[in-house]
Amino acid sequence: MTTFRPVLILALAGAQLSRGGEARLMPLMPAPWKAAAADGRLAITSGFSVAASGYTDARLESAMRRLVARVSRQTGIPISFSKATAANATLVIECGQRGPEYPTLGEDETYQLDVSAQGSTIKAVTVTGALRGMETFAQLIGPGADGFEAPAIHVDDKPRFPWRGLMLDVSRHWMPLEVVERNLDAMAAVKLNVFHWHLADDQGFRVESKRYPRLQELGSDGHFYTQDEVRRVIAYARGRGIRVVPEFDIPGHTTSWFVGYPELASAPGPYHIERSWGIFQPTMDPTREQIYTFLDGFFGEMTALFPDPYFHIGGDEVDDTQWKTSPSIQAFAREHNLPATEDLHGYFNQRVQALLKKYGKTMIGWDETLRPGLAPDTVIQSWRGQASLASAAKSGYRGILSFGYYLDHLRPASFHYAVDPLDGAGRELNGEQAARILGGEACMWSEYVSVETVDSRIWPRMAAMAERFWSPRETTDVRSMYARLEMVGRLLEWAGAQVRANQGRMLARMASGRPVEPLRFLADASESAIIDVRRSAHKYTSDIPLNRLVDVVQPESESIRRLDQAAANAASGSATPAELAELRAAFTSWAENNIRLEPVAGNALIEELKPLSKNLSTAGAIGMRALGYLKGGAEPPDGWIAQQSTTLGAMASPSAEVTLAAVRPVKALLDALAHRASSGLSR
Amino acid sequence: MTTFRPVLILALAGAQLSRGGEARLMPLMPAPWKAAAADGRLAITSGFSVAASGYTDARLESAMRRLVARVSRQTGIPISFSKATAANATLVIECGQRGPEYPTLGEDETYQLDVSAQGSTIKAVTVTGALRGMETFAQLIGPGADGFEAPAIHVDDKPRFPWRGLMLDVSRHWMPLEVVERNLDAMAAVKLNVFHWHLADDQGFRVESKRYPRLQELGSDGHFYTQDEVRRVIAYARGRGIRVVPEFDIPGHTTSWFVGYPELASAPGPYHIERSWGIFQPTMDPTREQIYTFLDGFFGEMTALFPDPYFHIGGDEVDDTQWKTSPSIQAFAREHNLPATEDLHGYFNQRVQALLKKYGKTMIGWDETLRPGLAPDTVIQSWRGQASLASAAKSGYRGILSFGYYLDHLRPASFHYAVDPLDGAGRELNGEQAARILGGEACMWSEYVSVETVDSRIWPRMAAMAERFWSPRETTDVRSMYARLEMVGRLLEWAGAQVRANQGRMLARMASGRPVEPLRFLADASESAIIDVRRSAHKYTSDIPLNRLVDVVQPESESIRRLDQAAANAASGSATPAELAELRAAFTSWAENNIRLEPVAGNALIEELKPLSKNLSTAGAIGMRALGYLKGGAEPPDGWIAQQSTTLGAMASPSAEVTLAAVRPVKALLDALAHRASSGLSR
Repeated sequence: MTTFRPVLILALAGAQLSRGGEARLMPLMPAPWKAAAADGRLAITSGFSVAASGYTDARLESAMRRLVARVSRQTGIPISFSKATAANATLVIECGQRGPEYPTLGEDETYQLDVSAQGSTIKAVTVTGALRGMETFAQLIGPGADGFEAPAIHVDDKPRFPWRGLMLDVSRHWMPLEVVERNLDAMAAVKLNVFHWHLADDQGFRVESKRYPRLQELGSDGHFYTQDEVRRVIAYARGRGIRVVPEFDIPGHTTSWFVGYPELASAPGPYHIERSWGIFQPTMDPTREQIYTFLDGFFGEMTALFPDPYFHIGGDEVDDTQWKTSPSIQAFAREHNLPATEDLHGYFNQRVQALLKKYGKTMIGWDETLRPGLAPDTVIQSWRGQASLASAAKSGYRGILSFGYYLDHLRPASFHYAVDPLDGAGRELNGEQAARILGGEACMWSEYVSVETVDSRIWPRMAAMAERFWSPRETTDVRSMYARLEMVGRLLEWAGAQVRANQGRMLARMASGRPVEPLRFLADASESAIIDVRRSAHKYTSDIPLNRLVDVVQPESESIRRLDQAAANAASGSATPAELAELRAAFTSWAENNIRLEPVAGNALIEELKPLSKNLSTAGAIGMRALGYLKGGAEPPDGWIAQQSTTLGAMASPSAEVTLAAVRPVKALLDALAHRASSGLSR
Repeated sequence: MTTFRPVLILALAGAQLSRGGEARLMPLMPAPWKAAAADGRLAITSGFSVAASGYTDARLESAMRRLVARVSRQTGIPISFSKATAANATLVIECGQRGPEYPTLGEDETYQLDVSAQGSTIKAVTVTGALRGMETFAQLIGPGADGFEAPAIHVDDKPRFPWRGLMLDVSRHWMPLEVVERNLDAMAAVKLNVFHWHLADDQGFRVESKRYPRLQELGSDGHFYTQDEVRRVIAYARGRGIRVVPEFDIPGHTTSWFVGYPELASAPGPYHIERSWGIFQPTMDPTREQIYTFLDGFFGEMTALFPDPYFHIGGDEVDDTQWKTSPSIQAFAREHNLPATEDLHGYFNQRVQALLKKYGKTMIGWDETLRPGLAPDTVIQSWRGQASLASAAKSGYRGILSFGYYLDHLRPASFHYAVDPLDGAGRELNGEQAARILGGEACMWSEYVSVETVDSRIWPRMAAMAERFWSPRETTDVRSMYARLEMVGRLLEWAGAQVRANQGRMLARMASGRPVEPLRFLADASESAIIDVRRSAHKYTSDIPLNRLVDVVQPESESIRRLDQAAANAASGSATPAELAELRAAFTSWAENNIRLEPVAGNALIEELKPLSKNLSTAGAIGMRALGYLKGGAEPPDGWIAQQSTTLGAMASPSAEVTLAAVRPVKALLDALAHRASSGLSR
């Protein structure tokens, strides 16, 4: 692996490869460590086939079948899987050995991919490496002048970090098996390798326990995975080179446990499944021996169910109200010299760790878990930041970063992309310490996502983080990232994720038989406001539907990002005819949109959008005039620019938990006009 | 049932019910026989529940669970299924009895539905009737001023015809299990009750035979249903009140049988799975006894697998080349006095019918099957028309109409809607004869549809035919039909059909990373040309991808239908501000569209669209000017109208197998201008 040099041809050049004089953007994401374009292209036809020429087994064979089906979906070409030989297959997989039977931290994931007009080859040491290469191959395929094709290329690739994860909270909103499976497919498509399954929280206990059946019987509203289903998910993930790390968050976030087993809590019950969001008081009693007897039995069952050597015990956000108000807990604390809440928590963690060790598991926990006395192999997952992680690394602990990777915060992809596990305090680590930073994990907490919207909240932004975790540290060009992200976002649909699949019908649900188009314009011109806006706008609970415009719109609008670019180019006089046409079409459509939306009114889902809709039309009208002044060269009337800027400024605050992104390109044109006026350029 | 009077409140009034002074269009389709609106509305919340108060069983309980899940999907409201009692449930099902265990021709499907602000009730004689009522209930739900609701209403409903079917050809393009299942869900949603499964044809034999395994082993490319899967489909359909009628087309359309069993054919093999479309020579030899031995064994196996008493033997399009050129067949024909091909075919059918009778099955066949000597219980499915059917009915045979209901012909819904099983020669039948016309079946032949597009070809148009088969004969208002069809089309997505689900990603596949929007405008402004255009444009085979614009666009454009209406109103001076805004927004977007599409060029999927795209922009520019003249009142320059009409006329012929529907509203405006000029109205 040390022979790799991060030659970022693709990443730095915006992944543009020249083919016969014509550039085609290739959606390679994460960007490979080394990629060199060559001449020619490999035709992808209904005769496409894959064969293994080296080591092969059931896992590789399944992956080859999946690749054929995927290429067929992605291209629309009917392709049947047929037993091909290495001599005649379109793609040959030369795999050296099996590698670990179950995906393993630090296993060899390297591969080389060669595509030429004559055929293609993936060389990999392990089956997992071959899986990674097959995903790269799929991303290369697109329509060319004579049909679908993959451009000739040499790729030499490996991951930067060995731990590249996605955490999914299935407690606050229940996520059925198919949600998990389709997101595992998407994870594999961008070379993620850890699925962190947040299985229990105040709002639901989601795994069947045969030993303590009241956990799921009373703590899940009937929404839980059977042990057979868990095994199915693990096998599904394993087939894609993804580890499954379960999390059972203790001692806080445990209300759902106490519905069936109130005796575990630090205060008497009864307890009910929590329906709202926040940090709640119910907490396990760390002072009673029967708690550890229970956990011993529970861990015995769950560690046997989940083969991964890492076991996540949460440990975050412990509300100490119950501890502080319990005389027996306070007495225990005094007796054992555990004066602070953190000390009690630390004591609990040591007991838990000892139990996990008995079952051969390594403990992971959130920042708060890290207290003196923990075993040196403990892994810390940090929501607090690089400083917390660096400090742990200096103490010899390994860690993964989640700070900056919270998908539920609804930040743009560029925000997450700029966060590096080794930034900040991480820069001060020496090589040995830095190696303890295993990678990162994005977190999809599910307060504000449902089965219907969760994929669109994870993807495509997650792909930008996957690049951060896989590609060289120097892969930081935001424009290249976005160009590829849009393409990968579309490809992820073929891999299985419902990135945009539900948007149309959610809008149709809102329109309720009226034309959807005006709602679509409004949605495309909008962005969901950041989570703080949502938290303060409305008292959400698990019974509140997530069926409004804010749930349809993305955290980032692709159309507006494109119009931003067009407006910037129009301002500098370098806009293409296509860009000017796009601006005119958008502004006109917006200007006409409010009046078109009016007949849709009369239902609650639309009523709240009236101010937003009016603003969009106003922005469109201003944009149209501004573009006219800018291109026509005539000057706007005195005071017009200032007046319109004020009008746009008043549209800045979110309405119905949605931000009108359409303001941005219009404002850019106004600013350009103001600049021209102040510099006297046009006079 | 004789107490029903077809009071077509909904159907005739465009299903508009007045609620508190405000009309909400309700997507009831098929229109009920009697529906009367009342005051008030039933709120649909996360507490929605269903309970049975009369007869209940596993089938009804499953349907109740499905309804809860469906209402949850359709509204976006989280609703858990909970055991409710009749005293507190939102919807109470009063079912009288089980009805037949397996859905049965002519079983009681009646129901009454009552909705008030306090609750709702479905009364039905049988479980199947209750299923029909639950679908009506689901269609009533939509967003109101305070959230989702169902309006107060009384519905009294029954089917007009007992046989309301959809035929799906799974031979020419393989349709996996999930395609069948999701279309069964959609069928149930519009009260269809026969799934006609076209399981074998020249291009593939799609059912596992344990007795003759080479049928699927060599005749299916590995794409067939196992017998367990068949049983699963039958159970799935039964749960939804749908019969499954299998078709094994013989003696023609049998190439796929002969790959494994060439000895069945009328000419020596070897045979290969057919890859192209048409009528082919391979035909069973009707003169050899071993054929009937084989069919006896085959029918023995298949009649046990399929519980329906009706068994379809196809019998259409027998090419007699093999028969005519076979000396032994000709000798047999002479010996048995069967001079014409039809006589031989008739002989074959009698033998087949005798075998089926042995297994307790009633034979169905296409028109050609009907020859003298067939048993009187034979059912004729007519692709030839009402005359063929009426003639059979006069001879005592029962029949179902498929003429006029071919979904693959890509005709508008209004075309199919206008076809009635009892029209034409059917009008001359007396009561007893007319009762032999059991109903109708739409046919989805699969030459030009794939897994990805088949739902969008069946739906929403199939729903209009479902109304023809269920609702009173007088339900013929096309405008009401279209208004409800658009809404039902959206609701069908929640029932499971992928009516529009794949459109976006198919366009994204074509755009290959470039903006999808210009392609979407082009698709929305286009309609797939009728099947004859497709047949002659291209030599299609099963290896040719169906991934082009023609596969994305619908046979009818909803946007253009709306613009047609807006243009007609603009022409008569009665357009609403919203309609004028829609026209302006559309024309501007079209005018700007071609230049926006240009950067997408360079791939084969886009290249063929250049003329179409250019025409759309031209049409948009003409439309914009025409609207200006019409609304501004100014006169166009001399000759302008004629010139533009010529330009539009040249756009009439299909390009890339697609028709530019956008021409229509523009032409309407030009015609209005011409009319104004000739009548001197504005001078």
